[in-house]
Amino acid sequence: MERNFKLTIEYDGTGYSGWQRQKDQPTVQGAIEAALATLTGASIPLKGSGRTDAGVHALSQVANFHATTRLGTKELQKGLNALTPEDIVITSCETVPLDFHARFDAREKTYQYRIGNRPIPAAIGRQYAWFIRRPLDVEAMKEALAHFQGIRDFKAFESTGSPRAHTIRNLSRAVLGREPCGILTVTLTANGFLRGMVRNIVGTLVEVGVGRLVPDAIPGILGTRNRNNAGAAAPPHGLFLVSVAYSEPPAD
Amino acid sequence: MERNFKLTIEYDGTGYSGWQRQKDQPTVQGAIEAALATLTGASIPLKGSGRTDAGVHALSQVANFHATTRLGTKELQKGLNALTPEDIVITSCETVPLDFHARFDAREKTYQYRIGNRPIPAAIGRQYAWFIRRPLDVEAMKEALAHFQGIRDFKAFESTGSPRAHTIRNLSRAVLGREPCGILTVTLTANGFLRGMVRNIVGTLVEVGVGRLVPDAIPGILGTRNRNNAGAAAPPHGLFLVSVAYSEPPAD
Repeated sequence: MERNFKLTIEYDGTGYSGWQRQKDQPTVQGAIEAALATLTGASIPLKGSGRTDAGVHALSQVANFHATTRLGTKELQKGLNALTPEDIVITSCETVPLDFHARFDAREKTYQYRIGNRPIPAAIGRQYAWFIRRPLDVEAMKEALAHFQGIRDFKAFESTGSPRAHTIRNLSRAVLGREPCGILTVTLTANGFLRGMVRNIVGTLVEVGVGRLVPDAIPGILGTRNRNNAGAAAPPHGLFLVSVAYSEPPAD
Repeated sequence: MERNFKLTIEYDGTGYSGWQRQKDQPTVQGAIEAALATLTGASIPLKGSGRTDAGVHALSQVANFHATTRLGTKELQKGLNALTPEDIVITSCETVPLDFHARFDAREKTYQYRIGNRPIPAAIGRQYAWFIRRPLDVEAMKEALAHFQGIRDFKAFESTGSPRAHTIRNLSRAVLGREPCGILTVTLTANGFLRGMVRNIVGTLVEVGVGRLVPDAIPGILGTRNRNNAGAAAPPHGLFLVSVAYSEPPAD
């Protein structure tokens, strides 16, 4: 009998060309699908909640797949964890209704971007934060961030390459915090994200932080709907997909 | 005129066969000495405060070297940071009295060992903590740790290979803490550490944490002065050399 399995996945994106399967490039989807093929003897496509770019990490990416395997969820989880490299960990495996789809049913996603601010670069944790040497004006960045929150047209913060039919998103939560170790965190929750949106917002916030842009410039930039008016994208290695929320807890 | 330079160094030990220079193996000392040779045109030996094992990290390792270079401390720091890989960062460079010696003058060192405790391994940060699946009894570990604090003969916690003439050390501080992310930290300060001492203590603490050893067994194990009675060494990748303290702040 066919069942639908939902996987929650933590991965360190450092060594991968992103989530999505590619020929001749190591990807997270590719690595899990390869393990799944070894485990089940079948070629089973994984449906992710969305792509992450090369170098981007995930604490809780979600994906689902349909299979007729006799393996139970615990066996699948253990088997996948044994067969995938140690920078990919299946943190949960459960069965969900057959019509559950990790991408189409996603109601909300949360990303976090980590920024280190110190005059000297860091050796420890350098793969998990964007280290910036120039002092950042955190209060100005907070002010700028507030302008992004709400229902906005984010066209000016969409990277080229995969344009969406409409570019209005509800950024319901936008918080600038600080970890005890001094790392700044930008946490964004929205009903959906355009391509490159988080990294483009963070890149623009850093422009504000270093004083090249005033916080009040943000509404104007949003209004132009022109990518050229926003800051350069922040690098991928500071970005984490933190969670994907679904309308109702999937039940078997 | 010959000067004596003191370097403070942060490094991610993941890719290195430890601190100490070795033929045909990448080491931290070797990488910095190579950069120093390129920068000054001379072969200058670096004196570290002590070795760290393969895979062990440092937030503040200290080393010194004598040189007659015309380069200033800022130029040396920038030059070394430009020439060493990004997993080695010189966080400070200063001139010190000619007789300062990073190893012989070290008065106290602090190490921290990081332990992750969760049923599923971690992908993010896996290179910076020892992840243990079995639940740990943190209170029992704290109780055990208290037995190590003070002036003790640590012979039973010295790894074979480089025995010291005497094995009594003053472990002046031994604290089991918890980071906000849930990582357990064991922070140890002593006037000196025997080879493998931190990892052997932590390995034994984990034996207590999983219930294979009672906290009150520690004084007995110390008393035997026999390495075979202590627990197996904790793996290197959870260990950080946090700081090295010197008798008086070196002044030029």
